[in-house]
This record gives sequence, C-alpha cells and structure tokens, in this order.
Amino acid sequence: METMSTAGTDRDYVQSLERGFAVLLAFDEDLTNPTLAELATATGFSRPAVRRLLLTLQRLGYVANEGTRWSLTPRVLTIGQHYTATNARIELAHPHLLRLAERTSESASLAELDHNEVVYVARVPVRRIMSINVAVGTRVSAHATSMGRVLLAWSGPERITRFLEEAPLRPHTARTLTDPAQLRTALATVREQGWSLVDGELEEGLISVSAPVRDRTGAVVAALASSTSAGRLAPERLQTETVPTLLETAAALSQELGYTQRTQPHARDGFF
Amino acid sequence: METMSTAGTDRDYVQSLERGFAVLLAFDEDLTNPTLAELATATGFSRPAVRRLLLTLQRLGYVANEGTRWSLTPRVLTIGQHYTATNARIELAHPHLLRLAERTSESASLAELDHNEVVYVARVPVRRIMSINVAVGTRVSAHATSMGRVLLAWSGPERITRFLEEAPLRPHTARTLTDPAQLRTALATVREQGWSLVDGELEEGLISVSAPVRDRTGAVVAALASSTSAGRLAPERLQTETVPTLLETAAALSQELGYTQRTQPHARDGFF
Repeated sequence: METMSTAGTDRDYVQSLERGFAVLLAFDEDLTNPTLAELATATGFSRPAVRRLLLTLQRLGYVANEGTRWSLTPRVLTIGQHYTATNARIELAHPHLLRLAERTSESASLAELDHNEVVYVARVPVRRIMSINVAVGTRVSAHATSMGRVLLAWSGPERITRFLEEAPLRPHTARTLTDPAQLRTALATVREQGWSLVDGELEEGLISVSAPVRDRTGAVVAALASSTSAGRLAPERLQTETVPTLLETAAALSQELGYTQRTQPHARDGFF
Repeated sequence: METMSTAGTDRDYVQSLERGFAVLLAFDEDLTNPTLAELATATGFSRPAVRRLLLTLQRLGYVANEGTRWSLTPRVLTIGQHYTATNARIELAHPHLLRLAERTSESASLAELDHNEVVYVARVPVRRIMSINVAVGTRVSAHATSMGRVLLAWSGPERITRFLEEAPLRPHTARTLTDPAQLRTALATVREQGWSLVDGELEEGLISVSAPVRDRTGAVVAALASSTSAGRLAPERLQTETVPTLLETAAALSQELGYTQRTQPHARDGFF
C-alpha cells in the first residue's frame, strides 16, 4: 500500500472540488436565490467558472434554477445525513436526548467540536428560546456556549492554547467572556465541577448547562446540553434541578459508548 | 448577460466535483471508517484519484484520518444547514411543528420532495417510533409514506405519471401499495379528503398522517406530518383526533407563507 501523506502537496489538491463547495456554500440567508452574477461576486470566481460549477451541481441535484435565479434543493440536507449515519453515537444519543428533554421540559442538544466552533449534531427542541435557528448543523461560538466550554475543557492544554491563539473571542453580549485568561480559568472550573453553565453569553436571556460525553477511551467526544430562557429558570434552579439529570444522562450515554469509570483517562486529555 | 442553458453540455461538466461528492457520500452506515482502498472499491475510482480527493476534502475540513482509516467530520452537517438557512419556510415552520408536537404528544415533521423521494427538512421528535433514524436529511420512499402521498397528490398529473414510471414501488412491508393503479387511486383520495393516512406501509406499526403546506402561489411546497405507533393510537382515533389539529396547523403555516383560500390554484397543480 502506498504511503499516505496527510498533509498533501499542491499537486494533490483538486481545486474544482474546493470551488464547487464554495459555490454551494455561497447560498445562505443573505443569498437565498442568487443569480449567476451574484454567485460570481460572492465567490470571486469568473462567471464561466461559476456557470460550469452550477451546471454540475444541478446535474447532481443540489441546485435548481427558475429563470436566472438559483436555489439549493433539499438534497443538500441529505449530505449531512451521511455524518449522522456514520456516527453510531448520534443514533445512540437519540433516546437519551428525548429522555432529558422530557425530564427537564427543556430543549436537549448534543454537540461536537469542529475546529474552533461548536456544531449541533442532534437536538430535541421543546420550545423556541434562541433567536437563531438551532437546527442540526448549526455552528456557534465555542467560547460563549456551555457546550463549547465542555468540549474545550477536556481537549488538552495544547488544544486550549491553540484555541485561545486562533479563535476570535467575539463578544456576543455584554456578558461574553472575551479575556483569554478568564476563559482559561472558566475551563479549569468546568473540569473541576464536571459541567458548565453559561448564562447569557451567546444571547441575552439564553442559559444552558452542559456535561461531557465520553467514549470507551475516556475521551470527551461530545457535549450534552440542556438550554432554557433565563426568564423561566434562574441559574440557581438550573444548577440544583437540571444539572443532576444532565449528569446522569451524560453518564448513561457515556456508558453506552463503552466508557467505564475505571477506563484509563484518554492520553489526549492531559489533565489527569 | 450570457444565455444560461439549464441542460449544459459535457464540456460544462466538472467531473472532479462529481467525484468529490461520490467519495464524500461513500461514507455511510456500512462504511463508517473506510480505508483508501475501500473507498476506491466503493466509488470505482482509482486509488490515486481517491487519494487526491480525500486530501482535498481533508483540507476543506470534511474528512479526517486516524492512521489508514478515514471518517467524516461534523462539518459535513453544516453543509445541510445552508439549505435550512436559505428556506424561510423551514424557519417559519418551527413553532408550528413544536405546537403540533405539543398538542398531539406525537412527533411532528416537515418534508419535501427531492426527485422521487421524500426528505425530512425539519422535525420535532417526541418519542422513538421508527427503527430508522429520522434525523433531518433522512430520505424515505414517497409511495409508502403519508408525506410522500401528499407531496405527490398535488404535484400534477404529469409528475405523477413520471413518478409511477420511474420510481420502484418497493414493498417495505406486506401492506405497502406497490400497484401503480392502486397508488393513483390513493392519491386521488388524498386530494379529495385533503390529507393522507398511511398505516404500516413503510414500517410495521408505524402510522402517520400528513397535510399539504402551500405557499402564496397555492403550490404544495411541503407536507406536514404527525406520526405515532399503531399500538398507541388506532387509525380511527388518529383520524378523529389528530387530523383536525394537523389540518389546522398546516393551514396556519400556509397562511404564514402567504397562502389565502382566494389565491389562484397554482398552474402546476393541474387538478383544479
């Protein structure tokens, strides 16, 4: 078998594949039904290049046009489904999310880290509490969410340092922690207490608690979260009422993923 | 502005883009952590070609490797999120789905047609009733689901004929309608009564009801569904208790999308 270089060289790079994704992802809330010209402006590619990519995406069923306006098709949603299908833990998490949502009467979520952001990988909504759409696949800041804090807390000292160097600690509200040193302290607290509570740092009035989900190696592979609006439940009540249920559910899911307390902490944890 | 041909010619086709998607979509429940060789076998491409595509997908953040095994990253989920972000109706449907789920104590779904299949575009799960994972982005047979019957029923006579010619009417259970003439009759009934009930045709014990969601042109753009297990609710009770709530919710959502009873029926409906 040939040697696999994970870095790759420029010769190994398929530019038209990158460009195809760039065109597909140029469709967003600000560009829902763009023309060819608008897509060329958004991507910086020439019109003939965008045209060829659009026609290819159309033949693959991902975009459709009505006159000169283009739009995404629901087939785009099925791409994401392949991630869900290849990750047994999302399937296994589903009944746990349902039970957590039922026991707390609050929305339950499972999230993972993707580079320096958090991605919702599964969710059972109970009521609408965020102004943003928190459909599966939604990305949010890691530093300003309880899920992100949990995922970072156990990601290892080097990973945390890299995050603090790379990620812009954007203030989403007046309460958002934007000081690297303060965030580092907050992460240490999360590791100590075993869970995270974030109150109004991503959005005013949004409050959430998260706990780590571990696999059989002991690595934290996901964060389980329960979120509510500050008006419904004070942080203190969230802590005394929701956190125990959250921890219990995260432990049950971790156990199902093969984690046992006796498991050696994962080498990458670095904190034990 | 140049003339846009929607058909395109072979010269307009970017083969490496198609191949990149083929490699990405080769990851599924049967191939969760493939090697390069397994991906080459699955796609039919040469190993060097698969290697270049994988390295490109890796640089884009969609795949990762551990040794010789490759896997999808959660970033793949965020591709689908672009469809949700570009479709106001999914955002608008969310509170309606929550209310439907709350009032019926059953899972509520919104689905759209993608070629000859149904794709879940939004969902509020209440309990686990299907053996398959019905995450957003999941594709199911149109002929064997109440959502598919609703979406087909108002898709127009030509579309229905094309569907019956193209789609394999696969028997999922002993009850699945697989005779084109019978399916045609079932669709006429759906149009007449304004909703669809399908009992155990996709999966034994799974029963669901669906109603059409219309936009301001009068076109049926989505199906709203409520699903339960046959053990919990007999078809008769579903009809008398759930259907009125379902129709009311679908009407409220349609109204929010700009549909009024006085709106001219959409030309493509063809049935009025």
